[in-house]
Amino acid sequence: MDCFFCTDKDAEYKISQTEHWNIYLSHNQTYLGRCLIALKRHTPDLAKLERAEWDDFVSLIEKLETSLLRSFEPSLFNWACLMNNAYQEKIPNPHVHWHLVPRYSHAVEFKGEVFEDLEFGHHYDSKKSRNISPNLRQILISRIKENL
Amino acid sequence: MDCFFCTDKDAEYKISQTEHWNIYLSHNQTYLGRCLIALKRHTPDLAKLERAEWDDFVSLIEKLETSLLRSFEPSLFNWACLMNNAYQEKIPNPHVHWHLVPRYSHAVEFKGEVFEDLEFGHHYDSKKSRNISPNLRQILISRIKENL
Repeated sequence: MDCFFCTDKDAEYKISQTEHWNIYLSHNQTYLGRCLIALKRHTPDLAKLERAEWDDFVSLIEKLETSLLRSFEPSLFNWACLMNNAYQEKIPNPHVHWHLVPRYSHAVEFKGEVFEDLEFGHHYDSKKSRNISPNLRQILISRIKENL
Repeated sequence: MDCFFCTDKDAEYKISQTEHWNIYLSHNQTYLGRCLIALKRHTPDLAKLERAEWDDFVSLIEKLETSLLRSFEPSLFNWACLMNNAYQEKIPNPHVHWHLVPRYSHAVEFKGEVFEDLEFGHHYDSKKSRNISPNLRQILISRIKENL
C-alpha cells in the first residue's frame, strides 16, 4: 500500500516545512491548533531517525509551540508518536509522524466558534473528532504560519 | 506541591538510568513492559530541554526499544510526552517525562499471566489500568534490565 505521508496527500492542510519535516494542521480540531508533523524521509521507527532529523525536530518543537502560544494561548502541549493506524493493514507500512495536541484550561473563541477542552488535566479523548470548514482551516493555517 | 519525579518516590519501579534520564516500569501494565522515562532535571516543558538531554534521550530510545523487543517481542512502540496530571493542581508543576507503551499484535503469556492488546491498530486505551504483583514487577524489571 502507498504511504499516505510520502504521497503528500494532505497538501491543503500543510502549514510549513523544515529541512526534514512537514508540518500539517490536523483534520481533527477537537483541540484547537492540533498539528501533525511528518518526517520527509520514509522511516518506520523513531529509533531509526538520523542525527540531523532529530536536531531539526528539536528546533521545530520550540518554534511550533511558540507559534501556537501566540496564536491561541494553550496551557500545555501533548506530544505523541504513535503510528497505530498503519497496523490496521495486512502489511504495515508505518512512517514516523508526531501529533501535537495543544491543551486548554479555558474555552477559546476563534472566529465565532468555541473550542473547549473538556478533558483538560486528563488524557485527550482519542475518540472525539471535530472537522472544521475549509475557510476556518485556511485561517488557522495562516495564523500559525505567520507566528512561526 | 512537591514534584513526584524530583523526590524519586517510585524507586521500587526503577529499571535503570542514563546520564540525564531515569527509567521506570509503569504502574499500569495493561500493555506489557510499559515504561516511564523522567528527566532528572526539573523542567516543565519539552521545548526547554538542553542539547545533551536530547542526545541522551535519542540513544535511550534505541536501547530501551531493543531491550523490550528482546524481552517481550512487541510489534510497535507508542511514545508520548503529555504531563496532563500536573494540571489537576491549582499551581501546576509539570516535570518532563515520557510514556513508552509497547503495542502487541498478539497475546503474550509471561510467567503464567496473559497480556492482550485488545486495541492494537488503534489508540491505546488511556482509561484501562492493570496492576501487577510486586513479584512480577521485579521479574519484569530484571528482564528489561538484563536486555538493556
